Order: sequence, then structure tokens, then C-alpha cells
Amino acid sequence: MEETFVPFRGIKNDLQGRLLCYKQDWTGGIKAGFRILAPTTYIFFASAIPVISFGEQLERSTEGVLTAVQTLASTAVCGIIHSIIGGQPLLILGVAEPTVIMYTFMFSFAKQRSELGRELFLAWAGWVCVWTAALLVMLAILGACSIINRFTRVAGELFGMLIAMLFMQQAIRGLVEEFRVPEREDTSLTEFMPSWRFANGMFALVLSFGLLLTALRSRKARSWRYGSGWIRSLVADYGVPLMVLVWTAVSYIPTKNVPHGIPRRLFSPNPWSPGAYGNWTDMLNVPIMYIVGAFIPATMIAVLYYFDHSVASQLAQQKEFNLRKPPSFHYDLLLLGFLTLMCGLLGIPPSNGVIPQSPMHTKSLATLKHQLLRNRLVATARESIRQNSSLGQLYGNMQEAYRQMQTPLIYQREPSQIGGGLKELKESTVQLASSVGSFDAPVDETVFDVDKEIDDLLPVEVKEQRVSNLMQATMVGGCVAAMPALRMIPTSVLWGYFAFMAIESLPGNQFWERILLLFTAPTRRYKVLEEYHATFVETVPFKTIAMFTIFQTIYLLLCFGITWVPIAGVLFPLLIMLLVPVRQYILPKFFKGVHLQDLDAADYEEAPAVPFIIPPEGDGGEILDGIITRSRGEIKRMCSPKLTSSSSATPVRDLKLSEKAYSPRVSELRGEINPGSGVRGPHSPRIGEVGQSSMGISPRSSN
Amino acid sequence: MEETFVPFRGIKNDLQGRLLCYKQDWTGGIKAGFRILAPTTYIFFASAIPVISFGEQLERSTEGVLTAVQTLASTAVCGIIHSIIGGQPLLILGVAEPTVIMYTFMFSFAKQRSELGRELFLAWAGWVCVWTAALLVMLAILGACSIINRFTRVAGELFGMLIAMLFMQQAIRGLVEEFRVPEREDTSLTEFMPSWRFANGMFALVLSFGLLLTALRSRKARSWRYGSGWIRSLVADYGVPLMVLVWTAVSYIPTKNVPHGIPRRLFSPNPWSPGAYGNWTDMLNVPIMYIVGAFIPATMIAVLYYFDHSVASQLAQQKEFNLRKPPSFHYDLLLLGFLTLMCGLLGIPPSNGVIPQSPMHTKSLATLKHQLLRNRLVATARESIRQNSSLGQLYGNMQEAYRQMQTPLIYQREPSQIGGGLKELKESTVQLASSVGSFDAPVDETVFDVDKEIDDLLPVEVKEQRVSNLMQATMVGGCVAAMPALRMIPTSVLWGYFAFMAIESLPGNQFWERILLLFTAPTRRYKVLEEYHATFVETVPFKTIAMFTIFQTIYLLLCFGITWVPIAGVLFPLLIMLLVPVRQYILPKFFKGVHLQDLDAADYEEAPAVPFIIPPEGDGGEILDGIITRSRGEIKRMCSPKLTSSSSATPVRDLKLSEKAYSPRVSELRGEINPGSGVRGPHSPRIGEVGQSSMGISPRSSN
Repeated sequence: MEETFVPFRGIKNDLQGRLLCYKQDWTGGIKAGFRILAPTTYIFFASAIPVISFGEQLERSTEGVLTAVQTLASTAVCGIIHSIIGGQPLLILGVAEPTVIMYTFMFSFAKQRSELGRELFLAWAGWVCVWTAALLVMLAILGACSIINRFTRVAGELFGMLIAMLFMQQAIRGLVEEFRVPEREDTSLTEFMPSWRFANGMFALVLSFGLLLTALRSRKARSWRYGSGWIRSLVADYGVPLMVLVWTAVSYIPTKNVPHGIPRRLFSPNPWSPGAYGNWTDMLNVPIMYIVGAFIPATMIAVLYYFDHSVASQLAQQKEFNLRKPPSFHYDLLLLGFLTLMCGLLGIPPSNGVIPQSPMHTKSLATLKHQLLRNRLVATARESIRQNSSLGQLYGNMQEAYRQMQTPLIYQREPSQIGGGLKELKESTVQLASSVGSFDAPVDETVFDVDKEIDDLLPVEVKEQRVSNLMQATMVGGCVAAMPALRMIPTSVLWGYFAFMAIESLPGNQFWERILLLFTAPTRRYKVLEEYHATFVETVPFKTIAMFTIFQTIYLLLCFGITWVPIAGVLFPLLIMLLVPVRQYILPKFFKGVHLQDLDAADYEEAPAVPFIIPPEGDGGEILDGIITRSRGEIKRMCSPKLTSSSSATPVRDLKLSEKAYSPRVSELRGEINPGSGVRGPHSPRIGEVGQSSMGISPRSSN
Repeated sequence: MEETFVPFRGIKNDLQGRLLCYKQDWTGGIKAGFRILAPTTYIFFASAIPVISFGEQLERSTEGVLTAVQTLASTAVCGIIHSIIGGQPLLILGVAEPTVIMYTFMFSFAKQRSELGRELFLAWAGWVCVWTAALLVMLAILGACSIINRFTRVAGELFGMLIAMLFMQQAIRGLVEEFRVPEREDTSLTEFMPSWRFANGMFALVLSFGLLLTALRSRKARSWRYGSGWIRSLVADYGVPLMVLVWTAVSYIPTKNVPHGIPRRLFSPNPWSPGAYGNWTDMLNVPIMYIVGAFIPATMIAVLYYFDHSVASQLAQQKEFNLRKPPSFHYDLLLLGFLTLMCGLLGIPPSNGVIPQSPMHTKSLATLKHQLLRNRLVATARESIRQNSSLGQLYGNMQEAYRQMQTPLIYQREPSQIGGGLKELKESTVQLASSVGSFDAPVDETVFDVDKEIDDLLPVEVKEQRVSNLMQATMVGGCVAAMPALRMIPTSVLWGYFAFMAIESLPGNQFWERILLLFTAPTRRYKVLEEYHATFVETVPFKTIAMFTIFQTIYLLLCFGITWVPIAGVLFPLLIMLLVPVRQYILPKFFKGVHLQDLDAADYEEAPAVPFIIPPEGDGGEILDGIITRSRGEIKRMCSPKLTSSSSATPVRDLKLSEKAYSPRVSELRGEINPGSGVRGPHSPRIGEVGQSSMGISPRSSN
């Protein structure tokens, strides 16, 4: 991304880019059919449950002025608008914890002032939103998001880890609370007797750990050994919501002699209850001094939103996902400004881009795309085998089927990502085929095991569309109506879900993987290489990795500590933003450029001379494939970021239509693969030769 | 084993065999050093905890006549005697559930008779033991254990599964009980108020699941990625006892406002309390009619013990363990007779060989032997590398070190098990060495990675000795004195431990693995082959496997059902013994001989023509290696039972001393491996050639 500070240019670029693929955003999503429900439900739960919990928190701290109904409404309305006219549809909006903290602070401030009081709190908060909106619009117009590429992996992943810690903290706090008498409750109730409180706490432990363990396990269902394929798929896709239902059902098992309030359940006013509506007061009644003063909290919220929104968007578009549609940081920030204004006027807390839901959304869409591609390719392969095709023809047919499934619009994010396409056939398969002579002869399933091999051929791709985002936001809106049903969920299931979200957000976070590496026995470090994409393990000395990780951990703990400071705590993003200059000017003094580049590739830095052997042919990205999401068992391989970052020192940004970008490569590949076609480039040996020369344990084995 | 029914011959053979290795049983155990503590502690807990729990059960059902003190005393005394003068030191003795059921029945009978009553119960039970002892001694003399080889895998594994089900049942029952008011307790106590009962139940769920999950996880510590080697070793070796301590400590965390009785803890009289001793009455006071009548329960107990003791011993000596010392079924049964007599006279319930503790004992000793061998070989390999040895010399040195570690006495259990010895070097290593020319030149760790490769070279072997058994029995005896400390353990931790034992006994049970196979998706069945030793998956049609497994499952459920029938339930072993004729005469009518042989190799059946390709050279057992104990991550490979059983149609039984049995093979191997030595057999190609000709995916690849 260019660093352009010319007013409006960023917004214009974003709009141009996204408009080109706008229609496809809808048609692509609709064509995916009922399968789109899996990521939708998954994200709906990840989105709604924290929002409800934050709503409860707000209700307690604003004396019922704001409740879960308002947080849900804000999340739904902002989500729907963003999914329709927003730039990046992968971004999920919601009322986040920092917003809750800010509103809590603002309420306690307003309550103390006789001119405002409880009555004018929402009106005053409305003014804060007006100022925030103005600041956000200004930032968007001036191109503040251009510096987003200075937020390197180190900053983004630290932020992700911090959010995971905050979620985990919430889970633990919640569980501890289950043993105590809740504030503002009648302590004389049976359920608050010491014995029942203790019973409630223990029950909460059972429910929350039950949810956590089963939900984590269900996400791995695809790699289970037992049960037929569709059951495993169903469990992996809908296991988490299902587990919420199951453990809610379990919470109803003990009825005999157990008081009504055990286990504790969600407490939220029905949308029809008097507390939920009619709080909106005329903003014009707020004294002028307070209107002006609202600028102070507004700057804090604006900084927070600018950072939060952009990083959430960035984390949802990481390089590993091989996205094909353009980003839209500037325009999305502009829209966020307007959404904040709207929320302020409506008297509901505003929403912004949320972590970890946004990256979770992208991951689940990658799984969806994988399934869609897989189904098509399996059908193609079976058809080819039925028609007695050779292995070469079969691969050609699959390439063609794959090409047809591609989004016609390709946004060239990085030069190294041109084309993509199917990966090459496994060496073992090619060797097997050539040895039994079935390379030109008809292939059968003993040589090409359809079910097993296709997973290895598929690259990571994401089903980029707007339907899942729109549907999940609409479902969040539906929660307002479904409040009576939601109130059946025990709070302890909620805490388990918070812990689940914290843990789910960790895999793929390189910072986390490096922390684990520190605790890995030296003899087993090679295993990290096997599982993750982690070239740095090979290229950077362990001591340097350790130093860098310890520095990052201390920084993380500092940020976490800051959140414990009352009021000022909300400004922890400032500390994370401080990482940008630290990374740019201070870290290079302590670490070698080459190592920094491997640990935290920054687009703005000139790539140093590549210190390790690049494979002779241009397919390096495929040979150095690694696995990204280890704990999910679905997505398999990704492009090596090492090569990507090294070769992307001068970012190119352009849009290409349809076949142009990849068709030369596809035909070249086809020429390579299908010896029967007679079309062979000068550097494309017969596939048997390729397989043989590139196999073996090490270069030495070819002697 | 011969089927000899000549009186005393079986006992004589057993004694001869075991006397030859008696001294080594002690020296070998002592030489193992402090590491012997790991299997000792592991088995001590597995032995003591159920015995304490059964003692509590007995206390309730015998109105305090018998308590945990007596069951512990019996287990300790019998265990100590058996470990010193018993035949098979792998066998663990203890008071088992069937004994408890029989004693419960006997107590309720005696109580109803005015001539006996509560007072004379132990005296009468003493007479039952006298008769039982007489029957057992007779059975032993007449060689009844000769038919033990008719107890094929199908019977032994069914029995193992049944015991696992009974343990699991006990765990579930115990947990349910935690929610109820215990019998004979004062219901007016605070802790039995509905609220505290519920709280206690929930706390019990937390404690028992906590113990179960952490204990299961700790057993896999050796394959963890994190932590240094010795921590992982420590956790794997002592994790289970440690977790009992940890969760007992956790149970003390809630103190504020929680009544003393929550969670419930073990209730046992201190050994000093009046109830524990002085119950022994003169057996001569029992009326003559009852002395004679005692013969009826005695026959039931004798049948039970004959079966239980022999099967426990058999399961502790499975072929997969490659034992080198002889079995001792006849003599052990004789000794059991005397132990029963002794217990009867002392007025304590008798002990017999227990499942799953006995096979657990062997497994943990296999782990110990693996560690000892490993340490020695690693040292040897490092030393050889330091001395610039070639790969051939290095392997020779390791063979020599391995040979020195062997028990001098080798009992040749099966012809196919001759020698054993180190496995061959990995093809990839040999190929690598020959390609870089370091086969004759000094080898370094890039070619031979000491830590990784040695695990692959080691066969499964068991540290067969008497020390661990003696020590664990002594420690069980120590429990009587440590009763005040034991009473701190919550009963819920006990239930978790029962579940743990049930689950730990499953891996390696082929019946269980076949049940899992039924639920495995067809496309993933090949994974079973990867993990287990399971040749039958390849050689037997799936439908036949399914039929056989369903038959076995129904039979298992029948046996389980029988245990629910009052009194008669104790005779479930009869139903399992019925499996012997069923297997021998009925099953062959429904299943092909070849398939039966693969699913359940019976020594007494003539091996049918081997239906699949046997590898050309004699090392088939090594090529078809599989993994036995998948969930333990320690023991790696085992001999294929298929080949073993096929070639063992005419069992040979002899004892060979020292080097004779394996040294020809060792030197042959060394000749094969070390081309520098100049000694090569006619069929031993250079190692590089071996590597190349035997590699590749399938025979087709050599075209």
C-alpha cells in the first residue's frame, strides 16, 4: 500500500478497488449455497456472545441506562450497514470492551455533574460520538491509514495476544464471580446462601470447562477418525453453537431441590421492558461547556477506534490468506465515522472492528472455500478417472476446474502471489505413476488417491463475499427479539466461551508460536518446523529469537498492566502504537536487519540479501510450503512469507482483470504436466524427471 | 506350553525354569537403580487405591467386620510373599472386586444363621478359604493350567474389557453417590442438606474429571514438546501419583464457610481403632454342618481364582512384550492355594492376581527397560562418534553394548523370538551415510542423529525382576500405617482414578481396537494400520472383522449383564470360560480358519497356509513392525503376532543359556553391517545396496 497523504486519494482508491468486485461479493456468496451457513453461525456466536456479556457489564455500570439490548442493536445495525456499503466485508463490527470501559468512565463522570446527571448522560455521550465521528472522518480523508503498513506483524500480533489475554481474564473473573454474591442482588435469596453459592460456583466450573473442552475438540472434528464424513463436517462446522446448546441443556438437568437461580443465567431486560427504550433525550439540552468538553474523551475514542478498526481489518487480511480482493482501510474508517455519529444520535454505544472475530471470520471462510474447491476437484478427478484419462490429463482437468472456480477479479496484493493455482502433484504420486507406466496410460485410484491427494493440491484461499457478514449481523439483530431464549444460557457457559475464543485466536499467531518455542526442548524444536510455517526457526539463531520474543512479551505485559490502570487503561492502544517507532528506529540497533526481516517482515524496509538458497525454479513458494492453522486440521498450506516479503520490497499495486494474471502460468504448468499435449517450454522437463530430480532427502542423495 | 496333565509335572517345570533366573530376578532389579521407583510407584497407586475402595465397600456390607485395613493387609502380605517365592514376578496380587462380592454374600448368609451370626462369620469364611485352598492345590497338582493356552486372545481380551467396564461402572456409581446421602450416615448433618449435597456432587465432578484428564495427559508427557527431557520423564513416570496429590490439595482449597465433610473423603478406621483387630475367632467353634457346607462357596471361589489368576498372569506375559524368562502358571496356582489358606486362617479376605494392574506392571517395566537400554546406547553411540568410528563400527559397538545389557538367561518362548537384538539401521540413515561416503569414514551426528535414531533401533523388552513387585507390596503394607494420611484423599479423586485405570487398560487390547475400527470412517481405516499392529485389517475382509467383533461385543454385554445378577453374578468367569469351547468348536463353523487365525491366533490350531506375501529374508517380524501402546508414547514397536503365531504351530519349549541363542545372529548382523570387517555371509549385500533395494513405495517402483 502506498503511503499517500493526499486528501481523499486513499478513499478514492479504496472505492475504486472495491466497486470492481462489489457485484461478485454478492453473487459469489449466494453461489456458495447453504454452506455459507457454517461460517455465518460460527461468527454469529463469536459476535453475539461477547456483545451480550459486555451489555450486562454496561448495565451494571450505567445503572441500567444501557443494556445488552443496546449493544446488540448497535452491533446489528452497524454490522448490517458495513456489510452492505462497507469496504472490506471480512471485517466484523461490534461493541468492544474498550468502548464499554469508556462509557463506564463517561457515565460516572456525568453522574457526578449536576448539570448532566443520569438523565443527560446519553445526550452528552451523543456529543462525544459527534466529535469522535468528526475526528475519524478527518483522519480518513487525510489518509491516516496509509501508515497501516508500518504496523508490522510484531504490533498486530501483540495486539491480538493482548485481546486474547483480556478475554481469558474475563473468563477467569467471571468464574470467580460465580462463587460470590453478585452486586446489587438481594443477598437474602436462597441461592445466595453460602452452600448454594458454593454449589453454583462448582456447577459453573463444570459447565464452563465442559463447554471449553468440547468446543475445542469439536473444531478438530474434521480430522477425527470416527464417524462418517458428513457427521465430522457437521460437527466441525456447527460444533461450537451446538455445544452452547448442549451445555445449556445440561444446566437444566438438576432441578430437584435446586433453587431457580442456580446456575446463574444471563440477565437482560426483554426488549419490551421499560428500561430498554426511551432513554434518548434531546442532545440540545446539554450545556455548551460540556459539548465542548466532550472533545476530550472523543480524542481518546478516536485514537482507539482508528487503531482498533485498522488492526482488526489488517489481521483479517493477513498475507497467509492469499486474498484476491483489495483492502479498504481509508474508506472503512470514513464509514466508521458516520456509523459512530449515527450511534451517538440514536443513544447507543458505537461499534468498531473487533478482534478476534474478524480474523476468525476470514479463517472460517478459508475453510468454506477449501470445501467448495475440494468438492469440485474431487468430482472432476473422479470423472477423469472414469474417462480413463492419464495422470497428466487428470491434472490438466483439475487445473481447468480450479480456474473456473476463481474469482474473475484478481487484486494483485503482492508480486509473488501472481496466479497461485493448484500446487504440483506430490512427487511420490508422479514417481509411482511413471514407474507403473500409467503416466500416459489411464490412471486409477491406486495411483491417484482422490480423497487424500486433493487436499495437498489446494492452496489456501478465502471465500471473500458479503453474505456471511450481512447474515451474521442480521442474526445479531434477531437476538434482540430472541432475548427470552438467550436468557436461558448460563453465565458460566459464557465464561467457557470467552476462554474458547481466547484459545481459538492463538494458532497462527507467530508471537504465540515463538513463546511456545522458548519452552520447547531443544531436541524437539525441529517439530515446530514440521507443523508451522516457521522459516525463522532455521534462519535466525535461537538466542536472537529468544531475545526478540522476551522483548515482545515484556511489552505485552506492560500493555496488559496498563489496562488495569483505571480510566487511562483504555489508552493501551497508544502503547501499542508506540511499537511502530520502536520497531522502526530502536529495534534495528539491537537486532540484525536480516533477522528482523525474518521475524517481522516490514514492507517499508529494503529486503536484505537473501541469506539462504532459493530453489532453482520459480516455484519456491510452493516448495517451501508450510502449514498455518495447526489446531484446526482444515487449512493445510500457505505461501512462505519469507519469500513473499523478501521479494516485495517494492510493493506494486494494480488490478488485473480475469485471465491475464494467471493464464500464462496455468498454460505453462499444463505444458509441463501433460506431455501428451506436445506443448513444452524450454525449462519444463517431463514430469517424471521433475519428480525424480527434486525428490530425495537432500541434494547429496542425487550422487 | 505343553498340555501336560501328569501330576506335579507342570509345577516341576515351572520351578526349574524360574529357579534358573531367580538370582538374576534380584540382581537385575537392584542394578536398575532408582529408576525402578517409577514402575513401583505407578503400580503401588494402581494397586492400593482400588483395594482401599473395595475395603470401604466391604466395611459397609460386613457391618465393619472387615475394613480397608484387612484388604490392605491381605494385599500386602500376599504380594510380599508372592514377589519373593512366587513364580511369575510380573503378576500383581490384590483383593479384587469378585472377592468382595463373594464375601458380601457370605456375610449376609452367615448373619441370618443363628449358629454363625456376625461373630462366627470370619471363622466360617476361614473354612471356605480352607476348602478353596484345597481345590486350588489340587488343580495346580493336576496341571489344570495346561489348558491356559486354550484361552486365546478373544477370551483374555474380553475379560480385560469386562474388568475395564466394571471399573468404569464403579467410577460412575461413585460419582452418582456423591450427590446422595451415604447409607448409615446421620442425615441431619449440615453437609447432607440438599444444597451441600449438590455442592458436594459438583465438587466431586470437578475433582474426578480433573484427576482423570490430567492423569491421562501426564502419561503422555514423554511425547510432549515442552519442557526439558528430565521434566517430561518425571511427569510421565510419576504424573499419576502426583495428580492424586495435586487434586487432593485442590480439594482443600475451599475452606471458608464450607462444612468439614465436603468434599467427602476416604472413611477408614485407623489401624489402632478397636474395630480393626481381634475379630479372629476360633474356627473350631463353627458347627460341622457349616464346615462341610463351606465347600459350596469354596468351589465358586476356586473357579474364580483359577481363572482370574491365570488370565492376569497370561495378560501380563503377552507375546508383544518379548519376555525372556519362563512363565509359571502351575506353581503360582499352588502358591495361591497356600496364600488363600493363610488369609483364611488370619481372617482377612484372600488376594489373587489382578487385572488391569498386572498388565500395567509389565507395560511400565517395558518402559523402564527401554529407558535403561536407551541411556546405555546413547552413551555408547556418543562415545563411538567421539572416537571417529564409522557407521558400521558404531552399530557394532551398540550391538555389543546391547548384548551386555541382556539377561544371560534366555527362555525361548516362541521360535520366532530367537535372539531379538537391535533392529537394523534406518534405510535413510544408511543411504545418507553411503552417499556422503561416511560409511567407512568417521560418522557424525548429521548422519546418525543419536537421540532420534536409537528409539527406532530398540525392540520392546521388559525389565523382568522381583524388586518392583516386592517394593509395591511393601508400600501397600505401609498404607495401613499411613491410613491417617490416606484419609485425606477425597473419594471423588478415587472415582476419577477408577475411570483412569479403565481407560489406561484399553490401548493394546485388540478387541477394543476392533470396536473402534467399526466406527472408523472407511476412508480413514488405513490410519489404524499406521498406528496399531493390526495386520488383520489387511488380511481379513471388513465384514468378517465386523461380524467377529459384534459377536464378541454381544458376549461381553452378556457377561456384564451377568454381573448384575445378585450372587450368581460372581460366576461371570464361568461364562468367559465357556468361550473356550465356543472358540474351539463353534466359531470355526462361522468364520474361515485363516481369518480366525488372524483375528485370534490359537496355539493349538494348525496354522493354515499363509495367505499373504512374507518378505523374502528372515526379518519379516521386523519389517511388519507395528506399534503397540499407542496412547503411551513410550514403547514403540512389536513383533507381528501374525508371523509369530503362524510359525508357532508346534510350540517348542526349552531353555538356553547365555550367548548361544542370539550370538550367531548378532555376528551375522555385524558382518552385514560392517563391510570393513571383511566377514560377509553369502546373502549379505553391502549395506548401501540393502538400503536401495528395499526402499521405494511398492515392489512396482523397482521396475
